[in-house]
Amino acid sequence: MNVVQMIEKKRDGFVLAKEEIDWLIQHYTQGEIPDYQLSAWLMAICWRGMDARETRDLTLAMVNTGDQLHLRDIVSPVIDKHSTGGVGDKVTIVVAPLVAACGVAVGKMTGRGLGYTGGTIDKLESIEGLRMTLTREEFLRIFAQHHIVLAGQSGDLAPADGKIYALRDVTGTVESVALIASSIMSKKIAIGASHLLLDVKYGSRVSVKTVEQAYPLAQMMVDIGKLAGIHTVAAITSMAQPLGKAVGNAVEVKEALAILKGEGPQDVADLCYHEAAELLVMTGKEPNMLAAEARVMEALRSGRAFEKLLEVIAAQGGNTRQLEQPELLPQAPVRVMLLAPRAGYIAGIRAETIGLVSMRLGAGRFSKKDVIDHRTGLILQAKIGDYRRENEPLVEIHARTETEAEAIRAELLGAYSWSEAPVSPDPLVHEMVRP
Amino acid sequence: MNVVQMIEKKRDGFVLAKEEIDWLIQHYTQGEIPDYQLSAWLMAICWRGMDARETRDLTLAMVNTGDQLHLRDIVSPVIDKHSTGGVGDKVTIVVAPLVAACGVAVGKMTGRGLGYTGGTIDKLESIEGLRMTLTREEFLRIFAQHHIVLAGQSGDLAPADGKIYALRDVTGTVESVALIASSIMSKKIAIGASHLLLDVKYGSRVSVKTVEQAYPLAQMMVDIGKLAGIHTVAAITSMAQPLGKAVGNAVEVKEALAILKGEGPQDVADLCYHEAAELLVMTGKEPNMLAAEARVMEALRSGRAFEKLLEVIAAQGGNTRQLEQPELLPQAPVRVMLLAPRAGYIAGIRAETIGLVSMRLGAGRFSKKDVIDHRTGLILQAKIGDYRRENEPLVEIHARTETEAEAIRAELLGAYSWSEAPVSPDPLVHEMVRP
Repeated sequence: MNVVQMIEKKRDGFVLAKEEIDWLIQHYTQGEIPDYQLSAWLMAICWRGMDARETRDLTLAMVNTGDQLHLRDIVSPVIDKHSTGGVGDKVTIVVAPLVAACGVAVGKMTGRGLGYTGGTIDKLESIEGLRMTLTREEFLRIFAQHHIVLAGQSGDLAPADGKIYALRDVTGTVESVALIASSIMSKKIAIGASHLLLDVKYGSRVSVKTVEQAYPLAQMMVDIGKLAGIHTVAAITSMAQPLGKAVGNAVEVKEALAILKGEGPQDVADLCYHEAAELLVMTGKEPNMLAAEARVMEALRSGRAFEKLLEVIAAQGGNTRQLEQPELLPQAPVRVMLLAPRAGYIAGIRAETIGLVSMRLGAGRFSKKDVIDHRTGLILQAKIGDYRRENEPLVEIHARTETEAEAIRAELLGAYSWSEAPVSPDPLVHEMVRP
Repeated sequence: MNVVQMIEKKRDGFVLAKEEIDWLIQHYTQGEIPDYQLSAWLMAICWRGMDARETRDLTLAMVNTGDQLHLRDIVSPVIDKHSTGGVGDKVTIVVAPLVAACGVAVGKMTGRGLGYTGGTIDKLESIEGLRMTLTREEFLRIFAQHHIVLAGQSGDLAPADGKIYALRDVTGTVESVALIASSIMSKKIAIGASHLLLDVKYGSRVSVKTVEQAYPLAQMMVDIGKLAGIHTVAAITSMAQPLGKAVGNAVEVKEALAILKGEGPQDVADLCYHEAAELLVMTGKEPNMLAAEARVMEALRSGRAFEKLLEVIAAQGGNTRQLEQPELLPQAPVRVMLLAPRAGYIAGIRAETIGLVSMRLGAGRFSKKDVIDHRTGLILQAKIGDYRRENEPLVEIHARTETEAEAIRAELLGAYSWSEAPVSPDPLVHEMVRP
């Protein structure tokens, strides 16, 4: 086969055969095809796209370059979940123990955050001693023993994806439905859960500004899941404003703990409960959403969901006293309350700006080498639709220094838009995409 | 500036600023931007294109990476010509001495052929002793002394183009109006003639199948020439069939010699005379085409055009006896006449197939390392519109061995299409694009 012909074929809008995609990914991963040819091919994919069959073949070609865990051969059903990433997204920290407490196994590998705030792994690392980097054997042992495990992404799964993602990151080829879908799904297929719930956010990412743009990505991943034998459902959810009130790392863990006790902000709590119930229905644990939601509530009220989180954190070496007494989690030395500059209804809180401000406070990474400060972040005091009088609390800034808190004040205020008339926020879950 | 942002800007269809293009080309040429980023950018250009201003800026950015000869500061007017490449294209070998014999200086650097037949430089190297690789000083001295010079392309001119072309060649990014136009024009601007005649072929190249596709390329190059202060005219000419009858290297030099004596095949002779006359009008040497054509004919009849070719070949060390007695040029050991397989009017002779067959005989290069055999090639015995009876001569094959001649027979016949009814070939010159 000939690389240049394959680049030209995609450039000219033709569909690639499975054998061509397999050959390209295999030889690229082995270092036999140079980066400069692959990046031209990736840009041709951004241009021409890939159909569902090509995207599935690309996904499986990447899976085949590495190890596979086949979790569903150990316990079944076993669920996995993935979010395309939002500001204030602590849903995994809630949903994983909640579902596990309802008797469905959870095997989850999660990424570090690049862009805006930390990823789930960064947030959980606020907990002292917690080990998110597990060997294959540790991961499988904890999973088999506790029916729940939450680890960092292993480089041994779909290594082609890691290599290609690094190249996409520096060649302007991140934004492509086929490339995003295959990147996410290759890691999910390599883990090998039986059921997968995806949360596709719209309204913040450059490429997914609208529902219309989120839908093809959700549909493509559901299709790939089906073709690969994983029962996959995608929720299309709004990122019109941050999820919940806490944005950062330790502050988000605290909020997750509150949600597991039935005490968190309503928007993100509802989303967590909805996703957990959806997973119970998907896996056949409950016959319908009504019954599933009742079971979820029972797991919260009884404290079993909270206990399950303690169990997995303990199994991975974390200090559970910090969960029982959240005031022991890392705290920022400086707290400054930003007041409402005017009276009015809050009409918008730009999630991207909130994320960027949070990064500047140290809670996210500008480059891969940056070290996250788990203490810093923001606590929103009001959300879209709330009415504030002038000088009422708007955002609590958790910073390392007064200077850093002051430096982001103007940018933070710029995230807000106001209305004289009452405002209703859009529903958080726009649509469920099912196979 | 940020390379990824610049890739994304072009990917998303925006126009790049001059400063951005300058920065990118300069840093790429200095090895500070990796190939994998440039190839993604080049594919984004294939996708989104570049407007005339961007293409001019890209062209000048490439010019600025190297030396410039400023020929028009030595003698003015001085003409340059360029053909996008056709099968049987020996026009430069005729037009250069013809125009010089009419008193207009010619400074021409020419490429080696890759794809189908050799380039002008390969064809001329059929002549014993001829030196096409000249130093800058030799090039300028011969030009100043003889007002004509024909050399191989110097790597010192627009080195960015050389580096970028090599990358395009292996990343499927050759076919782009902006990239083709800037590549050609960067070398022309670096040489610095006052007048430039371009011959844009349609009907053979993958990217330029129709007049509609040739026109934007011609227009783009005329625009860039104008913006760069070179009076540029483009002829859009048909490659529906090979030019003239000889296809190869020594056989084409022989045909060029015949044309310079007024004896060559009518199609290619007319094109040469037309281009020469156009150049005399462009440079103001003659007031109109009628007067220019008369002067061209006089240069042919008087033998001064032929003498001028001898003069420049001698100045560059070539054995002029081979021009005075063309039978001394390299000759293939085997000549086989392919006969018409049927009676009929010749309706088509696919130039690409003729070129490919000629390559297989040794007259062109499959890869850069291949060595050209100057002896081999084809002599068409009939062209579109001619009537052949069955078993009348169709093509004379000049080969190294009987076996090689036999091996291409079926493919060669496949280049021909036939008609029962008379056929008129399309006019060779479709249109002149002027500033």
